Amino acid sequence: MRYADRRERLRATAAGRGLDAVLVTELLNVRYLTGFTGSNGALLLRTDPSPAHPDLFGTDGRYTTQAGVQVPDVELLVDRGTVAALARAAVRGGAGRIGFESHHVTVDGLHALQSVLEDAAAGGTVPGLVSVRCAVEALRAVKDDDEVDALRRACAVADAALAELAAEGALRPGRTELQVGRELDARMLTMGAEAPSFETIVATGANSAIPHHRPDATELRAGDLLKLDFGATVDGYHSDMTRTVLLGGAGGEPADWQREVYELVAAAQAAGRAALAVGADVVAVDAAARDVIAQAGHAEHFTHGLGHGVGLQIHEAPGIGQQGAGRLTAGMAVTVEPGVYLPGHGGVRIEDTLVVTDDEPELLTLTSKELLVL
Amino acid sequence: MRYADRRERLRATAAGRGLDAVLVTELLNVRYLTGFTGSNGALLLRTDPSPAHPDLFGTDGRYTTQAGVQVPDVELLVDRGTVAALARAAVRGGAGRIGFESHHVTVDGLHALQSVLEDAAAGGTVPGLVSVRCAVEALRAVKDDDEVDALRRACAVADAALAELAAEGALRPGRTELQVGRELDARMLTMGAEAPSFETIVATGANSAIPHHRPDATELRAGDLLKLDFGATVDGYHSDMTRTVLLGGAGGEPADWQREVYELVAAAQAAGRAALAVGADVVAVDAAARDVIAQAGHAEHFTHGLGHGVGLQIHEAPGIGQQGAGRLTAGMAVTVEPGVYLPGHGGVRIEDTLVVTDDEPELLTLTSKELLVL
Repeated sequence: MRYADRRERLRATAAGRGLDAVLVTELLNVRYLTGFTGSNGALLLRTDPSPAHPDLFGTDGRYTTQAGVQVPDVELLVDRGTVAALARAAVRGGAGRIGFESHHVTVDGLHALQSVLEDAAAGGTVPGLVSVRCAVEALRAVKDDDEVDALRRACAVADAALAELAAEGALRPGRTELQVGRELDARMLTMGAEAPSFETIVATGANSAIPHHRPDATELRAGDLLKLDFGATVDGYHSDMTRTVLLGGAGGEPADWQREVYELVAAAQAAGRAALAVGADVVAVDAAARDVIAQAGHAEHFTHGLGHGVGLQIHEAPGIGQQGAGRLTAGMAVTVEPGVYLPGHGGVRIEDTLVVTDDEPELLTLTSKELLVL
Repeated sequence: MRYADRRERLRATAAGRGLDAVLVTELLNVRYLTGFTGSNGALLLRTDPSPAHPDLFGTDGRYTTQAGVQVPDVELLVDRGTVAALARAAVRGGAGRIGFESHHVTVDGLHALQSVLEDAAAGGTVPGLVSVRCAVEALRAVKDDDEVDALRRACAVADAALAELAAEGALRPGRTELQVGRELDARMLTMGAEAPSFETIVATGANSAIPHHRPDATELRAGDLLKLDFGATVDGYHSDMTRTVLLGGAGGEPADWQREVYELVAAAQAAGRAALAVGADVVAVDAAARDVIAQAGHAEHFTHGLGHGVGLQIHEAPGIGQQGAGRLTAGMAVTVEPGVYLPGHGGVRIEDTLVVTDDEPELLTLTSKELLVL
């Protein structure tokens, strides 16, 4: 079972840091380690579990049935005060050093946890709380086969939804960004997505120069660029893809500047994808694409990082950008998404989701990257 | 302008607590106070703003344009390290006591903030950080006219989506919970929702006895109950409605137990709605509905609270339940959602979204609560 494998990896991390237990409270981390998809759950993972003091999955009464189905292999603790109950169990198990997620636990949450530990210690030694920061996120950066499979299916839904929308002529002058965005979302749901991966970006004309434009009542016009940045969530995993198309104008040909910018971004994107290799420094991957754009004199028009990890979150480790740090390893799922934005004029972004492998990266978003004239 | 009014209410709170400034970082609170809908933004609100040291809205370079449009009336600060930059501005303005949201700021976030303040103080007195906990959430519990209007529109979308689905015969034996849920979601998007309010619950047959059942491949069967709990998000505001219908069986009549449970829950729900009055204690409102169910001998089959506030979040203040505290005031938007769940058998929940007023509560979810046989 994958979940058990993942917990063993975290147990090794905990042992390496001299911890007796780790209290995992970040909900996606809990899901990653147990399979639980409800809205309240936490995991007490012990470095040396025993029959008397096993790992514990905690949730509240709403989820008793669901926890039994989704987390059959971890002992269940049902309590309205889930985290406090797990903390008391840690004390009963004799834990002296308990890891916690300091990037997730709030200031109020830490105070409450400390009170619980003091009460539970009942005059004895109060266990120490030690930050494990992003220990689980670090594991999550490298996907296992089940995760890659879910990402592949999420990307396939996004591909199919866009193909259907284009085939039906829904991307035509006169329609609004909002209409297009909602239909794209609706189609992904009908095709099996749980939800869009994030708020779908539909940006046409001058709006396409705004990297994170929110779709509004702007109408699509012949001769304009149309940028679509969207994704589907399947089994909790997020796809992420951007395509920029041209709305058929007089003669159906792109203007010179449109073709020039498009080809530049496509070349930069190809360079970025080619740089996705095991061992590559994330700053160098960013630079591979950024240099192409800079050499064409558009450095200041590429205003964001090249990409980011995707998985249970739409943005997760590793970040691929000028401020990034670290190297790629096999199994990392990342986006490559350079853009060139000419304010007031228009912009192009092309983005894929890929998995780093020992060979070529595996491309998960399969929609064509040729400049499509609709 | 509503947003300015809201900021003045927070400023009065801050002054009352002897603070020089409040650093608002919880993103929905920032949206509530400024109108900003992006994914990174924070507000430094000063108790005594001046031209030299005004309130500041902070975000990063991705949102410069959007911030100009959405937050035209607060001075803009663009910085990748948004919160740190606002904290430095607070120090420059001479703030001695700075409020922060200890229920939202993480342990790591607080440490980072303290470091920034120490550096910025440059050997001078380091400002104190004082928890304001849920000060903004407390303001948000009482909706203004713009918010009620958005809730009204969100509820109307959910009503219309369900009506269309029922009229088209989509709720019929042989279809699966998942299909029904996805079509309901897709229809809400097409009708103008930004997103479903939460993961739509579709639960039929024995699954209807699970309060938070996740839709799966279970097929709808004639003679079974079908519970639908869903909502639409419009302009950031969430509607929440549950209806339980009967799938037409032999003769199309409900079984005695189905009718009995339905009528019991409907009576409890009506009692709960009738108890929604200005000044009512939330525990008493819960009891008004709970007592009806208890008197019928089903106390142990109503396993959750009666309702909750709705607004920019699907669950927000006030909670209406046995563990609640506080009284209702005019302008609070809440759900009333009793349920009776017979494990292994089936269950009924009926839920509306309403606004507390000085007169009768205003009902926002208008779908009939008669037992509908489809």
